Amino acid sequence: LAFAWLNGRLVDADLPHLRLDDRGLLLADGLFETMRAEAGVVPWLAAHLARLRTGADVLGLPVPPALDDPADLLAELLRANRLERAAVRLTLTRGPGPRGLAAPEPPMPTILVTVAPLPAAPPPARVAIAAGTCRNERSPLSRIKSLAYLDQILAWREARAGGADDALLLNTAGRLACATAATLFVVDGDRLLTPPLAEGALPGTTRARILALAATLGVEAAEEPLPPAILASCGEAFLANALVLLRPARSIAGLERDLRAPGPIGTTLAAALAQGE
Amino acid sequence: LAFAWLNGRLVDADLPHLRLDDRGLLLADGLFETMRAEAGVVPWLAAHLARLRTGADVLGLPVPPALDDPADLLAELLRANRLERAAVRLTLTRGPGPRGLAAPEPPMPTILVTVAPLPAAPPPARVAIAAGTCRNERSPLSRIKSLAYLDQILAWREARAGGADDALLLNTAGRLACATAATLFVVDGDRLLTPPLAEGALPGTTRARILALAATLGVEAAEEPLPPAILASCGEAFLANALVLLRPARSIAGLERDLRAPGPIGTTLAAALAQGE
Repeated sequence: LAFAWLNGRLVDADLPHLRLDDRGLLLADGLFETMRAEAGVVPWLAAHLARLRTGADVLGLPVPPALDDPADLLAELLRANRLERAAVRLTLTRGPGPRGLAAPEPPMPTILVTVAPLPAAPPPARVAIAAGTCRNERSPLSRIKSLAYLDQILAWREARAGGADDALLLNTAGRLACATAATLFVVDGDRLLTPPLAEGALPGTTRARILALAATLGVEAAEEPLPPAILASCGEAFLANALVLLRPARSIAGLERDLRAPGPIGTTLAAALAQGE
Repeated sequence: LAFAWLNGRLVDADLPHLRLDDRGLLLADGLFETMRAEAGVVPWLAAHLARLRTGADVLGLPVPPALDDPADLLAELLRANRLERAAVRLTLTRGPGPRGLAAPEPPMPTILVTVAPLPAAPPPARVAIAAGTCRNERSPLSRIKSLAYLDQILAWREARAGGADDALLLNTAGRLACATAATLFVVDGDRLLTPPLAEGALPGTTRARILALAATLGVEAAEEPLPPAILASCGEAFLANALVLLRPARSIAGLERDLRAPGPIGTTLAAALAQGE
């Protein structure tokens, strides 16, 4: 039996519990966080909650008191599912409402937390630049983790159909923004680079950790707009998110070159990230 | 008691029926259509289904056989709800699946149809151009009716907070794309203009009807990129969708002018649209 946490109680995760008029379903009107649990706790919970609150501010979505300090509910849910290491997903929607765009009054947000076994570390990735869609860095949605995830799904499907493992998305200016569910980092010379938030990058929790770790490890790191041509010359590239932490890229579709995967900076950072879990 | 149609059967619309792992909820991985029923039938059903199929092709989403000819199920649902005139929403999602972006295999799409009393015709609209977000005409999502509706919600909330009724969205090039849930038309001189699909306009069913009606009514109509400045000089502007049909705009926030609402072309078209229902 698998359990989920829904609006204050543990429920059987395989039974239908969601209302048909939930705005999360009907209009992608909500947010989520994907978190990594180790030893039954989420070590970077505070960073995830801070990002969730930023997103809720953008959407004008009240954050229910249950999310003031959800450590206990997460621990309870993990215990109920007999999981120590887990992928934890927290979803917050504007909840049920009438048809149309107006927010339901009073707001009755839906909180859903699900857990799954932590996936095995994937092998280094073959990545492709998505041609079929792009990241809209001019929308505030590019800087919050909203339920509107469909451009990333399109990019992912295109990459997989072309034989790659994951896609990089360009922004509307044609510069690199992110991967489908991860921050892009490249090593150019001995500098570690990642796109600034203004370029369409999500303020990833692991992105922030890597930028902070780089400083302590003596790696020069910067947020800089990245033209796709940098993939033809960079020494390393990797994808970072809270679940996988750091996944090296080993090839870029269309470029006849293999990257060191992992390279020295990726290896150093991956070890430092793992120590923080 | 209100009924919905979910995956082949009528269900109590006020009870929870949806699985927690539905991709429509988790990732906005799906499509919808909003349709107008008159006298217990949806007169423009074929056009809505054609658009749904186009969207399903973009998403790589199989369309279940139940949608080959859903007229009977719509009639049954309307009867069950004792509605003759109704707003009908058909939602198609990729259905339940495991975590991550990979599509569930085999696909088990969710089909949900809900109905609500047809809203009363709204008064002419005060519209505002959304400054906080924009339409990404570079994504194919701008040309299908996907569940990823959150940019429109942001624009709508901004407009309402500023005292307007609805928002117009610009595309990434700064030209007019659409309203939050309607096609924008303006009358410039004696020409009826609307943004081309390439500008980020959804191929609206009522948009197509209006363009076809204009030809029969002797109104010169064209799809042309529209700079926002055209709102300072146009004679009429109106918003069109399947539910409201045609809603005149009476003012544009920031411009000290009132539009004729309705003006002569809007009046002629609204009458012709109503006859087709």
